[in-house]
Amino acid sequence: MPNYKLTLSYEGTRYKGWQRQGNTAGTIQEKLENLLGRILGQPVELAASGRTDAGVHARMQICSFRAETELSPAALLRELRRYLPEDIGAEALEEAPPRFHARLNCREKTYVYRIWNSSAPNVFTRRWQYRVEEPLDLAVMEKAAALLCGEHDFAAFCSLKNSRKSTVRQLRAVRFRREGEELQICFTGDGFLYNMVRILTGTLLEVGLGLRTPEDMPRILESRDRALAGSTAPAAGLTLWEVLY
Amino acid sequence: MPNYKLTLSYEGTRYKGWQRQGNTAGTIQEKLENLLGRILGQPVELAASGRTDAGVHARMQICSFRAETELSPAALLRELRRYLPEDIGAEALEEAPPRFHARLNCREKTYVYRIWNSSAPNVFTRRWQYRVEEPLDLAVMEKAAALLCGEHDFAAFCSLKNSRKSTVRQLRAVRFRREGEELQICFTGDGFLYNMVRILTGTLLEVGLGLRTPEDMPRILESRDRALAGSTAPAAGLTLWEVLY
Repeated sequence: MPNYKLTLSYEGTRYKGWQRQGNTAGTIQEKLENLLGRILGQPVELAASGRTDAGVHARMQICSFRAETELSPAALLRELRRYLPEDIGAEALEEAPPRFHARLNCREKTYVYRIWNSSAPNVFTRRWQYRVEEPLDLAVMEKAAALLCGEHDFAAFCSLKNSRKSTVRQLRAVRFRREGEELQICFTGDGFLYNMVRILTGTLLEVGLGLRTPEDMPRILESRDRALAGSTAPAAGLTLWEVLY
Repeated sequence: MPNYKLTLSYEGTRYKGWQRQGNTAGTIQEKLENLLGRILGQPVELAASGRTDAGVHARMQICSFRAETELSPAALLRELRRYLPEDIGAEALEEAPPRFHARLNCREKTYVYRIWNSSAPNVFTRRWQYRVEEPLDLAVMEKAAALLCGEHDFAAFCSLKNSRKSTVRQLRAVRFRREGEELQICFTGDGFLYNMVRILTGTLLEVGLGLRTPEDMPRILESRDRALAGSTAPAAGLTLWEVLY
């Protein structure tokens, strides 16, 4: 059966995250699988590069699926665009090599956590930025971030404990971009644990606010103890930015 | 009574425009006057630089009002921010000279019409951009815009006819900014008639799509006939950008 690669964007505000969950309605996967199923007249199973939590957005999410259809990819893309809700965008659709799998072949992901750092709210960007009113010390945040980069056991930066799975990940880069009052923290790695980017962000924000020092980072990593890391930053600030294969 | 200058932003999607209208609930003026009235314990009347239509946004809207209060401007601003809904932002509040009036003293306004020019939707900016799928010929749009600039009778670019009021306005500049798939058309003038920016935009879009030529512009202006101008572009794409005194 032909294999397809679908590039999506979504504003996650309204959704219970990416992954279909038993009886719970309102996930993005469910929405898309149901729509593709109706258009193609057959059940469709989507694999995504990774799950995104409830309320998390995607500038670029990659999925793959197999289907037998006479529609060209361009025609199928048009159909998708016609019926998708306004907060899910079908960016591109192409036929993929037979063995391509959006999750298994994913080589690198970048998540961006967006902060509006001002005492005045931003009415236009509030759905995908987290507002921090106090000034942030970017220099110490950068220092702390550098100590978190590399291959580490990130168990302390993960919400769910599943002792049988490895919690070792390679955090390849943490970059800071400031444009006016927006601060973007860009996390690039081979993969991320459950809530990992949000806990990393929460911890870095506590450093930026002077509540922790960069030197705490190695100790938190070594502890493998979630309780020692910072709080989980709100989902709304997080966007899956780029996925590489 | 002390006089105040309040700088606002708002996402107009949910609102029936700026101006309080008899019994109609859901205008921004009403929301703010009611809130200021409750905070200050006295009726408050707001003057704005100008009305914005239902669904139109403001990056910068200026208001003035008089009130007797023991609260400092900073304290009053904090109270406003505490109670305003998320789609109305109180950017700044300061005491103004006794004769300052947000509408009467306004010297120049800039409105920006934002277009997402792509066949793929943008899930993040859809509330304040109008999507045009077809390619636009920017060069002819710029030519047409230049022919509309200057002091003219803009009756053809105005929705409501009130024959007793002057429809002469000075359109000082129309600038085009393209950043990726976003096209911004920035209109600067001494004042704008009802729906004027949206009709100017609708007409320029028709030029950009090849349905009209720049040379039609002088003829439309001279006619003073609304029927000869283009369609009224949707409210959602329009943002009041800057107000000068």
